[in-house]
Amino acid sequence: MPEGRLVIGTKRYSSWSLRGWLAVQIAGLDVEEQVFKLAGTGASPALEGVTPTGLVPYLEHRGARVWESLSIIEYCAEHHAALWPTDRVARAHARSVAAEMQGGFRELRMAMPYNAGRDFPGQRRTPGALADIARIEAIWAECLAASRGPFLFGAELTGADVMYAPVVGRFLTWQPELTAKTHAYCAAVRTHPLVVRWYAEAAATPADWLLEKYENPA
Amino acid sequence: MPEGRLVIGTKRYSSWSLRGWLAVQIAGLDVEEQVFKLAGTGASPALEGVTPTGLVPYLEHRGARVWESLSIIEYCAEHHAALWPTDRVARAHARSVAAEMQGGFRELRMAMPYNAGRDFPGQRRTPGALADIARIEAIWAECLAASRGPFLFGAELTGADVMYAPVVGRFLTWQPELTAKTHAYCAAVRTHPLVVRWYAEAAATPADWLLEKYENPA
Repeated sequence: MPEGRLVIGTKRYSSWSLRGWLAVQIAGLDVEEQVFKLAGTGASPALEGVTPTGLVPYLEHRGARVWESLSIIEYCAEHHAALWPTDRVARAHARSVAAEMQGGFRELRMAMPYNAGRDFPGQRRTPGALADIARIEAIWAECLAASRGPFLFGAELTGADVMYAPVVGRFLTWQPELTAKTHAYCAAVRTHPLVVRWYAEAAATPADWLLEKYENPA
Repeated sequence: MPEGRLVIGTKRYSSWSLRGWLAVQIAGLDVEEQVFKLAGTGASPALEGVTPTGLVPYLEHRGARVWESLSIIEYCAEHHAALWPTDRVARAHARSVAAEMQGGFRELRMAMPYNAGRDFPGQRRTPGALADIARIEAIWAECLAASRGPFLFGAELTGADVMYAPVVGRFLTWQPELTAKTHAYCAAVRTHPLVVRWYAEAAATPADWLLEKYENPA
């Protein structure tokens, strides 16, 4: 009998679901996975009344109701401390770059939506998206230089990697120009067993869940 | 000798600085306060090179470099556990509503900027801002019903109140229509000794730090 449920959206598109899903998998919470079909924009009607905000990801676990990626990560970290670095200074750094992702990089998110099943190389390189990418590369380079990789804070995925995992996906799909270090980090994330599993499950998205706006972007 | 520094912007305008400042005060960190003059838009030239993002608030403490309100709150909570509720379920709830604030309510923020020294009653009630206000009132009502107030999770300010303190300020300045419960909560926050001190210090903003766009909004 599972101890709760994780509500997420179409794995092919729902970059934010990937975060909640990764955190829950890393922490090993015993919850049932419920996948809802995403609508094309904003809150999905199917999710109304299912989650407090009408958005995903959303976690229920032993009486706790948890939403927003960062909050789900913190909840999971209470059950699996290694989701944050053990060193106080590194932990503060990890939480800072994770929080910078939570509300930021809007131009990148608008220009280069997540699609786990398609490549659109070279498109959508708007000035705003490029500025966001430059900041993200600087953040990653600083983390990787201090930790020596392969993940942002060392040998294991932390909440910082979880928050940026959708960005890795965007980079793989849209293929903007990136440094060699960024490519290496993206490869490390993409080949992590959990991410491999996510992409495999995303590849099984039913045909009637596909959305024109993400499959044939203007 | 202080153990670090808190970098913030003009107290009269910098709603996000209020969050970092409140968290640091509640946790009692011994840091020097450095207040920079905010520019009219985005990153301030004076902050370039001073903080990792060119934004405020930014905390340095015993070798840790911490930015983004939520990350500063988590850092402070490691030194003062009462910044989050002690109950696991309430703590997950508090972190969820705090994270919902971190990246959200953009329409409200655009329409009703923070100004600790002015009242603009009845203006800027855009549909998007009103939708954000409705969601915020629902969040607060649910928290206050469970905790019995006066703050979102009971007798003391938590990270959730810290995150929403700038919204309280916006409501006091722009005075949209609000429920009696919202008014009571806003009054509780506004009369908290730390918030009283913030407003007193904001009232001492030098004349040449005033910004036309916030003093005479269109």
